[in-house]
Amino acid sequence: MPEIRYNPITRQWVIIATERARRPEQFSQKEGKKQLPAYDAKCPFCPGNEALAPPETLRLARAAPTGSGWQVRVVPNKFAALAAEGELVRSNVGLKRTMTGVGIHEVIVETPLHNTTTARLTDPEVVQIVESYQQRYGAISKDPRVAQLTIFKNHGVAAGTSLEHPHSQLIGTPIIPTEVRDRMETALRFYDEEGTCLFCRTLAEEMDEGTRIVLEGEHFTAFVPFAALSPFHLWIYPKRHSASFAQMDEKEKQDLARVLRRVLAKLYKGLEDPDYNYTIRTAPHDAAGVRYYHWYLSVVPRVTKMAGFELGSGMFINVALPEEAAKFLRGIAVD
Amino acid sequence: MPEIRYNPITRQWVIIATERARRPEQFSQKEGKKQLPAYDAKCPFCPGNEALAPPETLRLARAAPTGSGWQVRVVPNKFAALAAEGELVRSNVGLKRTMTGVGIHEVIVETPLHNTTTARLTDPEVVQIVESYQQRYGAISKDPRVAQLTIFKNHGVAAGTSLEHPHSQLIGTPIIPTEVRDRMETALRFYDEEGTCLFCRTLAEEMDEGTRIVLEGEHFTAFVPFAALSPFHLWIYPKRHSASFAQMDEKEKQDLARVLRRVLAKLYKGLEDPDYNYTIRTAPHDAAGVRYYHWYLSVVPRVTKMAGFELGSGMFINVALPEEAAKFLRGIAVD
Repeated sequence: MPEIRYNPITRQWVIIATERARRPEQFSQKEGKKQLPAYDAKCPFCPGNEALAPPETLRLARAAPTGSGWQVRVVPNKFAALAAEGELVRSNVGLKRTMTGVGIHEVIVETPLHNTTTARLTDPEVVQIVESYQQRYGAISKDPRVAQLTIFKNHGVAAGTSLEHPHSQLIGTPIIPTEVRDRMETALRFYDEEGTCLFCRTLAEEMDEGTRIVLEGEHFTAFVPFAALSPFHLWIYPKRHSASFAQMDEKEKQDLARVLRRVLAKLYKGLEDPDYNYTIRTAPHDAAGVRYYHWYLSVVPRVTKMAGFELGSGMFINVALPEEAAKFLRGIAVD
Repeated sequence: MPEIRYNPITRQWVIIATERARRPEQFSQKEGKKQLPAYDAKCPFCPGNEALAPPETLRLARAAPTGSGWQVRVVPNKFAALAAEGELVRSNVGLKRTMTGVGIHEVIVETPLHNTTTARLTDPEVVQIVESYQQRYGAISKDPRVAQLTIFKNHGVAAGTSLEHPHSQLIGTPIIPTEVRDRMETALRFYDEEGTCLFCRTLAEEMDEGTRIVLEGEHFTAFVPFAALSPFHLWIYPKRHSASFAQMDEKEKQDLARVLRRVLAKLYKGLEDPDYNYTIRTAPHDAAGVRYYHWYLSVVPRVTKMAGFELGSGMFINVALPEEAAKFLRGIAVD
């Protein structure tokens, strides 16, 4: 019998379709993988080609003993979705509400190597990526036009990327997206009724039950949500209550890098480098101190497609049991 | 300068990314199209293979002068997401909310021909498809376990279909999806404040402005929403206020078929048979008479991919100007 599960954080009901469920290894993405060179002369993100991208906003030096050169660079997106210059002007005409598309859109070049991926980097290299996120988050959140910052990564064609060189992105929008506001409100209501953070409670229940835990670091825990939207959908939660990504301290940053790298390495090894998105869900910087919201990182492997039912109802059909997906990933050994 | 537009119906803000915008014809999907046979011996939906699918729940005879045989068949989905038999049982343990996955999941086989598509059918043939939707909607909404019915179509691999034979689907869930409830609430608030249906007002403004209209039938109007989520995203609205799909009368059914066929033919011709989803967004049958909600059909061509930003913020980036997309589609001549 299929089961319908509720996610109290997103307020979504998900059909766990046991009758059409596949075994975890059946989601493996062997096909269509292309061999890439370590350096591509036309790639704007490869070392030596820096002039092909707009001037960098951040450069982090190589942590490895090899020393010279950069490890991570951040540059404005050449084809930015929002304009970095200009004033925020709103207009209301009839039902039409518009504002000028001002904001920040940057690309985080995660490594000088064209043909690697986070799953294959070292912990200190991933720390540099997280460090760059936090530095740019801190700087951009001072821009009075920016209300919310979304940090995300598109890995592979199915995840919507057109550039091969490992990178992530950051978009600072002049409004708080409705979905973010809705989730803040849901969390606030829970806090009002229960006197505790919904996310802290969720994590406590997950730790208690254990069946959906994928791995536990010192400061972060990775688990498959009880009502995961899709196969191998994963959440990485900070154990300490904090609403904003900006609040991570040095030790937490180190641990997040390690947990994220190991989670991605498990996907890489277990599902043969599947395409995926990840995204950091943080409270708006104006609300960084609230007791009711809790930031986290969400990983969505793109091993199935969103189809008409999802588009037409907002409900998802997940063809993998969350407990089996978690068990499968737990069983994959990584450093 | 990019523009951020608001959709008061979905409450979503959409970035219209003018800097990365492509011209309409650049979304054309020439590549990777496979020639299909008119009949496939292994296809459970081809005539003569009826025994490969579960027993039909509806059969509509061929409308054409050719006479014999079926034109449309509806069968239970062999790999149903929900179980047709069983009781609805809820369970609440800690934060976990679950219910048994009972409900209805059917497949509408839209034509006996394996290698055609709605865009190439005749008006009477499309009327039969709409007729089958309405008949099954009427029958299934009597099942006390079903709270909401979602009718949808996945056309092509990018739209999430694995079966080539032209078909659409219907899922009756034992709950009203949260997104549907949220939209009902948004519409109700508008009605409370303005004393009119938000959708009727939207349609009136669109007709008045004209720039986003794609085509107008006698009873239905197709247009690109002001804050379209993605290139060529289209809405088909009934002109007469009605909350439920079930309320269409005979003349409206004829006109919906004609408008839908012509819209899909424009996409087929203009973008070389792009993959798409469509979905019918109707009020729950319990609320069929409300004055504040208005049913419609939404078409989403899958010419771009949803990526990390969309997943992480709920905001969309649309790389086609709605007015240009509408103008392009208006310009494509179809019968």
